[in-house]
Amino acid sequence: MAKNLKIIPLGGLGEIGKNMTLLEYGRNQIIVDCGVMFPESDMYGIDLVLPQFDYVVENQDILRGIVLTHGHQDHIGGLPYLLERVNAPIYGTALTIGMVERQLEEAHVRERATLEVIDDTQTLHLGPFRISPFAVAHSIPAAVGLVIDTPVGAIVHTGDYKLDETPTGGRTTDLQRLQALTPHGVLALLGDSTNVDRPGRTPTEQLVADTLDTLFAEANGRRIIIATFSSLLARLQEIMRLAEKYGRKVALTGRSLQQNINLARELGYLKVPDSLFVDITDNVADGNLVILSTGSQGEPRSALNRMAKGEHRQIHVHENDTIIVSGGTIPGNEEDVGRMLNNLFARGANVIYGALATVHVSGHGSREDMRIMLETVNPRFLIPVHGETRHLHLHARLAQEGGLAAENVFILQNGAVWTTDGEKAWLEEPIPAEDVYVDGYLVGEIGELVMRDRERLAQDGFVVVYVPIDKKHKLVGEPRLFSRGFLRMDQSSVLLDAAVKELKRELKRNGRNHDDTVRETLQNFFYHKTQSRPVILPNIVRV
Amino acid sequence: MAKNLKIIPLGGLGEIGKNMTLLEYGRNQIIVDCGVMFPESDMYGIDLVLPQFDYVVENQDILRGIVLTHGHQDHIGGLPYLLERVNAPIYGTALTIGMVERQLEEAHVRERATLEVIDDTQTLHLGPFRISPFAVAHSIPAAVGLVIDTPVGAIVHTGDYKLDETPTGGRTTDLQRLQALTPHGVLALLGDSTNVDRPGRTPTEQLVADTLDTLFAEANGRRIIIATFSSLLARLQEIMRLAEKYGRKVALTGRSLQQNINLARELGYLKVPDSLFVDITDNVADGNLVILSTGSQGEPRSALNRMAKGEHRQIHVHENDTIIVSGGTIPGNEEDVGRMLNNLFARGANVIYGALATVHVSGHGSREDMRIMLETVNPRFLIPVHGETRHLHLHARLAQEGGLAAENVFILQNGAVWTTDGEKAWLEEPIPAEDVYVDGYLVGEIGELVMRDRERLAQDGFVVVYVPIDKKHKLVGEPRLFSRGFLRMDQSSVLLDAAVKELKRELKRNGRNHDDTVRETLQNFFYHKTQSRPVILPNIVRV
Repeated sequence: MAKNLKIIPLGGLGEIGKNMTLLEYGRNQIIVDCGVMFPESDMYGIDLVLPQFDYVVENQDILRGIVLTHGHQDHIGGLPYLLERVNAPIYGTALTIGMVERQLEEAHVRERATLEVIDDTQTLHLGPFRISPFAVAHSIPAAVGLVIDTPVGAIVHTGDYKLDETPTGGRTTDLQRLQALTPHGVLALLGDSTNVDRPGRTPTEQLVADTLDTLFAEANGRRIIIATFSSLLARLQEIMRLAEKYGRKVALTGRSLQQNINLARELGYLKVPDSLFVDITDNVADGNLVILSTGSQGEPRSALNRMAKGEHRQIHVHENDTIIVSGGTIPGNEEDVGRMLNNLFARGANVIYGALATVHVSGHGSREDMRIMLETVNPRFLIPVHGETRHLHLHARLAQEGGLAAENVFILQNGAVWTTDGEKAWLEEPIPAEDVYVDGYLVGEIGELVMRDRERLAQDGFVVVYVPIDKKHKLVGEPRLFSRGFLRMDQSSVLLDAAVKELKRELKRNGRNHDDTVRETLQNFFYHKTQSRPVILPNIVRV
Repeated sequence: MAKNLKIIPLGGLGEIGKNMTLLEYGRNQIIVDCGVMFPESDMYGIDLVLPQFDYVVENQDILRGIVLTHGHQDHIGGLPYLLERVNAPIYGTALTIGMVERQLEEAHVRERATLEVIDDTQTLHLGPFRISPFAVAHSIPAAVGLVIDTPVGAIVHTGDYKLDETPTGGRTTDLQRLQALTPHGVLALLGDSTNVDRPGRTPTEQLVADTLDTLFAEANGRRIIIATFSSLLARLQEIMRLAEKYGRKVALTGRSLQQNINLARELGYLKVPDSLFVDITDNVADGNLVILSTGSQGEPRSALNRMAKGEHRQIHVHENDTIIVSGGTIPGNEEDVGRMLNNLFARGANVIYGALATVHVSGHGSREDMRIMLETVNPRFLIPVHGETRHLHLHARLAQEGGLAAENVFILQNGAVWTTDGEKAWLEEPIPAEDVYVDGYLVGEIGELVMRDRERLAQDGFVVVYVPIDKKHKLVGEPRLFSRGFLRMDQSSVLLDAAVKELKRELKRNGRNHDDTVRETLQNFFYHKTQSRPVILPNIVRV
């Protein structure tokens, strides 16, 4: 009996982040990417969000390998957690594997992994899957999309991509190879949807290079500080070229930046003479220095944010600084970035950011780039991936505008089991694919209940109520209230005295269920008096 | 002895919101605007932020009146709170006063206020101040800027404005009157800085009207749902015109929308026949209906968000809906708006939002509009207002590009006391102008300490530790831990048992200061085990 192919997204659908897709054919499974997502602002206290790995763990006897498209955290960040539970070889380009290796070392799980470097001229055989990477232009070098030949047809996963014909890094999306790899057509396209609501085409990285050149020329005699993504190596290369052109040395601040630059130089992705670099503590005239820094997202502990707050040990921002924030603001980071910019301006620096000049372009293709991809691949089925729900729907509409039948476009949710025999496609019973929260060392132990408590605590704090009772459950002595995050205890004695009085009355009136009495009495009392609903925690103690 | 003029911003500098400015000459004070600010995402549990009124309250014997530029919340929302403490007449255009009146009624303080309607042909005399409003184009009708003649020279406060030469409401910024009112030049300009980092000029509202016309034409046979700001009456008027043109009836959902439309029709700012309106429950064919709704910011309880979540009692979004979200996303609301859009798409509707078409333009002038204002007013001194720090600095730079000397541009903070004799200007000792938090009925009672507690509780929750001791401060029986928002108590018994064990050992070893022992022991223990720092609240009880 002919088998069916299953494609199961475990993350990245209905969200930007934690991209992860399973492909299954009979007793063979491969994974494409294994990313993390950064928490939304109402995910209180959460450090990271992981895909739910349970299905992979349960089926690890059929897992043949993990193939990575590129080295961004939303594509590789889940690996240290997955490797705690699963054993499988990991494949990626040299830079991607280099970044994974460093990450696994930091998590002390390097020895659990078999890492294999592949490149975009090779084809990898994993059971019935024949996987051929093709080069894509993205905001990190050595990114690839994948053509995955299966017994029922060819699947194309674009990874993250844009169609930059003049990238400064020289790597453009190889649509020729993509077409050459799919001579018999494409059964299904899994296409990046991130920027589908941006009109036109994503501008070339060359635009940023031109802007930076102008800013370097204008900054004559001034110190230049540039913050960008530490993995945006093409831009780092360009900045170093400009430093040489304008007779400046380069100093680095920020750990991830130093690590990535070391790795990229080792692997040949970054070509810079040693002589270009100086230490951040070296004495170099303002006009002869570029400081490269992390922190384009206003991350609280990043180098640039520490400069903004006057907390950077070596670098003190002053009026002779030109500061270029060369990274688009990722949704959710607007307030952090805004505050950092305000602090930098307050120090008198000349600050250039995205609203003022083209100092950043996206790594994802826009609507017209996606149209070109759809036309190039011309798949029988489209599964939009990498996007919130609105992006998936807009990607679907774009395909339908291009002539794809509505029934051949599948808007899936994480956990959907999309199944095809090579002719038809249908959905089978979904698998669990919830958000898994990482909070410090706790992985998956923080659930909805704890999150709801945190939200309520954030809003209104809590009140602990100590109630001493005797053997007969009678109140003996005074109830005492302790509170944090609710109101100022020291300034609210009238209110609190009234609360205790009310509570004593109710405790005397009611029977033995003091817990409920305390909760209901104080919840009503405080809501009536303040419109707040602090968490009430009764502590009934027999004394 | 000649007196000096003082200009004191109490809000709106270094922030977008709670705009409020004092002008003082001798024993005469006036206030321009009295707004609120909506909380940033890390202001946990806060409903609103007010300017600090203490200085005004202390000096109310010299307060001559409050002059309002327009009816947006960031210009009038503080009045109910100010009127609790201060008595002064309030002046504004008819619509502005109408909106204030409704707001004061809702806060049950209407009887405290003397409300006076002025218009932009009048001049108001308040002590030594001669105040002449001039019309400005903004995203609410009847907005004005102010020329304030003082004994030392003329002050211009732009209010919020843009320079729309073809506004659909017909109200353009009256630069002619502004010039006519200042024949002897302008001493100081207080200029709106909000959009200084947007290049070029803010597009005309007419663009939105054109887009909406196209969308109405395309939606032939489909139901149209439009969400916009309830005070954006020019756009509401335009939508109603289009409804008539395309043979549709209009139904309203959302309280503020109904209130504003009623008020605007009463005052003649909105001209619509009664026959255009239907009730939301009336049976009208999809193709003959426009539903006007609140909720363009994804506010949790707004009408459109309730539709998105399937919680709106009368309106169920379906595939035959064209939904137009016709309001720019205010910074900080991106996640809420994004989630709402996703939910609307998931219901199959055709959703149009800012990224896809010009369904909104800003109410504030962009960089080139501001340049025109600077050239028109040509002030001796510039005080940029209405903006975060970066906007104030960029506004200052814009003025310097236009030839204003750096020493004549003052970037102030809230509470600064800018003083001038009509020739020179200098800063005197600042007055207190902190954020005042409103949390339910609590005004100003939530301080930094409570906010820090809330932040920590949001991150890691709390643990209450009940420790029974005897007369000699010796532990008798078991310490007990109660926690919320930290981890799942039911699934963490191993960890908690270990914590109790460790705690008992430490309590036995250490002396009488059990509070500190509990805090330190458990903080270290939990941090070591989980990397979290819950709030530890010891409850040492003599039994």
